[in-house]
Amino acid sequence: MPLTERRLADPDHWSLASAIRALSMDAVEAANSGHPGMPMGMADVATVLWGKHLKFDASAPNWFDRDRFILSAGHGSMLIYSLLHLTGFEQMTLDQIRNFRQWGAITAGHPEYGHAEGVETTTGPLGQGIATSVGFAMAEAKMRAEFGEELCDHRTWVIAGDGCLMEGISQEAIALAGHLRLGRLIVLWDDNGITIDGKVSLSDSTDQIKRFEASGWRTLICDGHDAADIDRALTAAREDDGRPVLVACRTTIGYGSAKKGGTSGVHGSPLGADEIKATRLAYAWDHADFDIPDDIRARWLQIGQRGAAAREAWAARVDALPADQRDAFAARVSGEANPALAPAIAEVKRKASAETPKVATRKASEMVLAAVNPVLPETIGGSADLTGSNLTKTADLGVFDAQNRAGRYVYYGIREHGMAAAMNGLALHGGFRPYGGTFLCFTDYARGAMRLSALMGVPVVYVMTHDSIGLGEDGPTHQPVEHLAMLRATPNTWTFRPCDVVETAEAWELALSTDTTPSVLALSRQNLPTLRTEHRDENLTARGAYVLREASAAPQAILLATGSEVEIAVKAAAALEADGIPTRVVSVPCMELFRDQDDAYRAEVLPEGPVRVAIEAAVRQPWDWLLLGERGHWQRADFVGMTGFGASAPADRLYKEFGITPEDTVAKVKALL
Amino acid sequence: MPLTERRLADPDHWSLASAIRALSMDAVEAANSGHPGMPMGMADVATVLWGKHLKFDASAPNWFDRDRFILSAGHGSMLIYSLLHLTGFEQMTLDQIRNFRQWGAITAGHPEYGHAEGVETTTGPLGQGIATSVGFAMAEAKMRAEFGEELCDHRTWVIAGDGCLMEGISQEAIALAGHLRLGRLIVLWDDNGITIDGKVSLSDSTDQIKRFEASGWRTLICDGHDAADIDRALTAAREDDGRPVLVACRTTIGYGSAKKGGTSGVHGSPLGADEIKATRLAYAWDHADFDIPDDIRARWLQIGQRGAAAREAWAARVDALPADQRDAFAARVSGEANPALAPAIAEVKRKASAETPKVATRKASEMVLAAVNPVLPETIGGSADLTGSNLTKTADLGVFDAQNRAGRYVYYGIREHGMAAAMNGLALHGGFRPYGGTFLCFTDYARGAMRLSALMGVPVVYVMTHDSIGLGEDGPTHQPVEHLAMLRATPNTWTFRPCDVVETAEAWELALSTDTTPSVLALSRQNLPTLRTEHRDENLTARGAYVLREASAAPQAILLATGSEVEIAVKAAAALEADGIPTRVVSVPCMELFRDQDDAYRAEVLPEGPVRVAIEAAVRQPWDWLLLGERGHWQRADFVGMTGFGASAPADRLYKEFGITPEDTVAKVKALL
Repeated sequence: MPLTERRLADPDHWSLASAIRALSMDAVEAANSGHPGMPMGMADVATVLWGKHLKFDASAPNWFDRDRFILSAGHGSMLIYSLLHLTGFEQMTLDQIRNFRQWGAITAGHPEYGHAEGVETTTGPLGQGIATSVGFAMAEAKMRAEFGEELCDHRTWVIAGDGCLMEGISQEAIALAGHLRLGRLIVLWDDNGITIDGKVSLSDSTDQIKRFEASGWRTLICDGHDAADIDRALTAAREDDGRPVLVACRTTIGYGSAKKGGTSGVHGSPLGADEIKATRLAYAWDHADFDIPDDIRARWLQIGQRGAAAREAWAARVDALPADQRDAFAARVSGEANPALAPAIAEVKRKASAETPKVATRKASEMVLAAVNPVLPETIGGSADLTGSNLTKTADLGVFDAQNRAGRYVYYGIREHGMAAAMNGLALHGGFRPYGGTFLCFTDYARGAMRLSALMGVPVVYVMTHDSIGLGEDGPTHQPVEHLAMLRATPNTWTFRPCDVVETAEAWELALSTDTTPSVLALSRQNLPTLRTEHRDENLTARGAYVLREASAAPQAILLATGSEVEIAVKAAAALEADGIPTRVVSVPCMELFRDQDDAYRAEVLPEGPVRVAIEAAVRQPWDWLLLGERGHWQRADFVGMTGFGASAPADRLYKEFGITPEDTVAKVKALL
Repeated sequence: MPLTERRLADPDHWSLASAIRALSMDAVEAANSGHPGMPMGMADVATVLWGKHLKFDASAPNWFDRDRFILSAGHGSMLIYSLLHLTGFEQMTLDQIRNFRQWGAITAGHPEYGHAEGVETTTGPLGQGIATSVGFAMAEAKMRAEFGEELCDHRTWVIAGDGCLMEGISQEAIALAGHLRLGRLIVLWDDNGITIDGKVSLSDSTDQIKRFEASGWRTLICDGHDAADIDRALTAAREDDGRPVLVACRTTIGYGSAKKGGTSGVHGSPLGADEIKATRLAYAWDHADFDIPDDIRARWLQIGQRGAAAREAWAARVDALPADQRDAFAARVSGEANPALAPAIAEVKRKASAETPKVATRKASEMVLAAVNPVLPETIGGSADLTGSNLTKTADLGVFDAQNRAGRYVYYGIREHGMAAAMNGLALHGGFRPYGGTFLCFTDYARGAMRLSALMGVPVVYVMTHDSIGLGEDGPTHQPVEHLAMLRATPNTWTFRPCDVVETAEAWELALSTDTTPSVLALSRQNLPTLRTEHRDENLTARGAYVLREASAAPQAILLATGSEVEIAVKAAAALEADGIPTRVVSVPCMELFRDQDDAYRAEVLPEGPVRVAIEAAVRQPWDWLLLGERGHWQRADFVGMTGFGASAPADRLYKEFGITPEDTVAKVKALL
C-alpha cells in the first residue's frame, strides 16, 4: 500500500508514528551522526507495541513487574529515546533529545544502561540485546515460579535487526531460549532486507523463519507498516505456548524518504535538510524541528500512563503480602548484598585455615559455593558444558530447565558468549546474582558480553578455571597466557586470582557483595596448599595485595605472585632466606583493588629498596606498574612468567620447561642483588 | 545392529577401524589424559572417509591439490594422529603416538598446525574448525576459477561435534558457506547425543538438519557404524550441486565400551585398564598395547598410497604448463612475499611525503590497497558489513560470491568471528593473503579466531578502523580502550597503529611480507596530517619505534605516541620547545617490533635522562615497560590516555574532556621536570 493511503487509512496511528520518525530524523540531523533509517522503519511496530501491548508506566520506570523492552538493534537508539520522551519518562526531556550524542546527555550514541531510565540494557554491539534478553526471560520465569504470578508476570520484548541475527551469539541465544521454552520472550525482527553494506542478499541467504523454528520458536509474520496487522501479530505473540516467538516485521528502512528509503544510504547517516523536508511532506508532518503538536503529545502521554492501574494493583498485592514474604521479595529485588554471606564466608575461611586442605582453587570455589548457595537464594549458577571441570554445581541446586523453574543451575551448553549475555540479563532483570563457568582461555569467546558487564557495571561472576599452563596436557589452545592482561586492562573488572581456599572465599565474598562491578575468578586446575593458615576476619583480598609471608629481617627482596604461583614464591622465599636473603612474599589476588588502596598502604606493602620479582604463569604486561613503580620510582625488578604460548605436557613439566619454579625465581633475585 | 554382528558382517572394515580405536584408547591411557570417546565413535566414519573418499597421498602431505581434512572436534585428536600414523605419514611415528600429549611430541593435546604434517589447522576451541573450513572451501573454489580444475579440484571434509554446532561461530560459518554456495564443503557431524555435561538434551533441542537447510545446505543422514551406509552417504556428499553438505552420522560415543560407551564418562577421561581390556575383547582385538598386526598395517599403508597416481598426474599437468603459467601458479602457492609489493609501497610513501595529504589512516589504508591490490593477485579483501567505514574495497576487485569466483572482495556480513576464521582458512589453504575489516572494538567478537591466527602463525591482516574515542558519537560500546593492550599482550601478533599515510604504507608492507605473524592495523576514523614529510626508502615502522622529530638540543623530554596521538605529541613538543624545553617525539607504530630491536637501538631512541610521557587514547597497561624501562632503569614518566570507558560526543570534545591534548601533555611534562 502506498504511504499516502496508509496515512489516510489510519490517521491516528499515523500521527503517533510520525512523531517518532520526525524526532529521529531531527535528532540525527542535529547531531550530524546516527542511524535514522531504523527508527523510521520500525516506528509503526513500536507505536503499536508501546501503544497497546507493552506493560509499563512511564511514571515508574523501575516498576519490577513491567515488561522489558530491549532495543537489540541499538544503533537505532533514537527509536527508544523518542518513545521514552513521548510517553513521558521524566528524565527524557526534549533537551536531551536535542542533545542526542552530545557530551553529558543521557541520549548516548547507543542505548546505555544507567544513562536513561527505560533503557534496560546496553546495546549497540550487535546480537547482545537478543542474547541478554534470554537472561531477562529466564529471570522472569524463575521469579514467577518462586513468587507467583501475582508478583511476577511480564514479558520481554526485543527489537532486533539483520545484524543481530547474523552474529553468532544470536544462535547461542535462540537455541538456549528455545530449549528452555521461554514463551514470554518475543523478538520483533526488523526485516528490512538492508545492512550497512547494502542488501542483505549481498551476504546472507538464510531462511530465518526456518532457522528459528529449528530452535523451537514459534514464528509470525506481519506487514510492519500496517498497524492492524502488527496488532494482530503482537496479540498472537502474547499467547504463551512455551515457545519463544519471532515476529518477522516486513519493513522499509527509512520509510517515507523518497530518495533513501529502502536503501543502505539511510542506515547510518543523517538524511540531510532537503531530504528531511521532502520526507516531512510525505508524512504530512507540517511541524517545526523537534516540535510535537499538543494533541499528539497528549495521546502519547496517555500511552505512558496505560500501565498505571496495573502497577497500582501490583503494589497493592505486594503490600498485602505477609511481612516475611514481602521482606523476602524486597530483599531479592533490592540487589543489595545478602547479610547471610559474611558469616558463611567466615566459616569457610576459619575451617580452611584450621584444616589446611590441599585442593585446586576451582575445588575451593566449589567449597565456597557449597556454603553460600544454601543461604543465598539469589544465586543462579551454570557452566558452558564444563560443570565437572568448573565445579560450579553444588548439591541441591536443582536444574533450571523447561520443566523445573525452581532449579538454580543452568546447563548453558557450549555457548560461552550466550551464557555471559544471559547472565547480564539475569542480573539486570533483578532478583538474581548469576555466576557461570568456562575455562579462562575461553574468555575469548565471551568477551563481547563480558565487556558489557563491565561497561554496565553488572555484578555477574565469571568462574574461569584451568587458568594457566597448569592445566597441562590440553595444550596451548586451552592455556591462557594473555587473558589476565586482557581482563586487567578492561575498566571496571575485578580479576581475582586467589592462591588458596581462604583467598578464594574472600574473592567470592567481594564478588557477591558489589553491585557495580563484574568479577572474574581465575582458578587453578591443579592442587595448591593452604597458605593462609592463620584465620583473620578481615578480608585481605579486599586490599588487592598484602604481605603473606614477612621476611626474617628488613627485606632485601620482595616476591609478588598470584594464584598457583604464590606457592612457588613461598618456596623461593624459603630458599632465599636459607641463603641469608630476607625475603617478603606479597600475594596479589586482585591488582585492581590494590590500585585503589591509598599510597601509604601501597608503600607499606611494596617499600622502595628491596628488589622485586613477580611470578605469574602468564605474560608480564600487567605487572610492570607494580614491578617498576607507577611513576617510575627506581626499582630493580624482574619477572618469572610466560613470553609466548604454552605447550602440551603434564603441568609440572611445563612449569619446569618454561622456567617458572622456585629455583628460577631464586636465580633471578640473586642476579638483581 | 549389535557390535558383534557388525564385526562379523564386515571384518575387513572392522579391523581397520579397530586399529584407530585401539591406538586411541592406548594413547589416552598412556597419557592419562585426553578424549577417547570421540575417536572410538567416529572410527568407522573416518575409516570409510580415508579409505575410499579422501584424496590424499601420505608420502606428499603438502600436495596442493589434496582434499583437506579438518578435525573441528579437536579434542578427539587421537583420531587424526591414528589416521596419520596408520596411513604412513612419515612424521607420525609410533613413538609420537606413544608420547601423545608429552613435551616435545608433535602429538599435541589438540591438533596444532605446524606440529604434524596432515594437520591442516589448529582446532580444539570449539567451532573454529568448521569456521576455518569455510575459508579453505572459498580458497579452493577461487583457485579453481583462476587456474582451472586441472590444477585445483578438491574438497574440504570436516568432522564436527555437537560442541562445534552449539558455538555461535558455527552459525556465522554455515550461513556464509550456504550463501557462497560452497558445494565442496562437507561436514560430517558426529551426532552422538553426548557433551561433557551429559546428554545433549540437557542443553539443546535444536533440529540441526532443519537449521542447516535454513542456511542453504544439503543434508544427509547415515548410520555412523555401518560402513556401507557411510559409504553411500559420502558418495552422495561428493556430488557438488552448489550446496555445502551436512552428513549427520549417528554414532555412539566410546563405541564398544560396555560400561562407558554412549555416556559422557568416555568423553574426556581415559577408560582405565580394566575397561580397555573389556573393550578389546568386544572388538575381538587381541593385540598388545600400541600393537598393530602386519596385515592390518599393510592395508592401512595401501590406503595412504591411494592418491599417489592422482598426485603424479597432477604434477605432470603442472609440469606441462607454459612456463609463465607454471611460474604464476608456483608464486601463488609459495606464500612468499610478492616482489611487486615493495615498489608499490615505495611509490605511495614518496607521493604522500610530497603531497602531505590530511586523511584518516583508514583512508590511508585504502590508498595503500589501491596501489597494492592491482599488483598482488593473492590479496582477498572483505569486511564484516562495514565496507564504507573500513574502506577495504578498492576499485576493480570484484565481489567473490556464488556467481563470481573471480571476485576478490567478500561481503562477510555481520560475522566478525566467522570472517576471522575464514581468513585463517584462506591463508592456510594457500594461494591467498586475506585481509578483513571491522571496528577495533569488535576485535572482541573475533578474538577466538584471532588468537588462532597468532598461535598458528598465519599472516592474515585485520583492518581495524575507528580505533579509539576518536570515532566520537557512537560512544563507549564502539570505543576501544583496552583492545590495544589485549592485542599487545597476545604473543606473535603485530599491532600497528600508524600515524599517517607513510606509516600506514609501511605497516601494510610488513603485514604483507611476513609469513609467520598476523597483523592488526588500528586505524583512525578522523583525519590526521602527514607527519613523515621527508621520503625515506627505509621502512622505519619495521623498527617499531623511531625518532620522528628530534629535539632542538639534548632532549629534556621524550614524548612517545601512536596513531592519532602522534599529532598531539608533535604539537606538545612544539609548545615545549617554545618554552625552552628541548623535546624529542618518538613515534611507536608497533611495540612488538621495537621490543625485537637490539639494546643499542632502543637506548638510542629512548636514552636515559629525559622525562618520558606517552600519549595514547587507550589504557596505560602496555606502556609501562617503555615508560619505566624493562628492568627498572630509573625514569621520570607519565601517561596521557584513558583510565575508563569513553563517552558519546564529537571526537574533539572527548579528547578535551578526557585530557588527551597538547596542553595536558605539556602540563604533565612540566610537572616532571
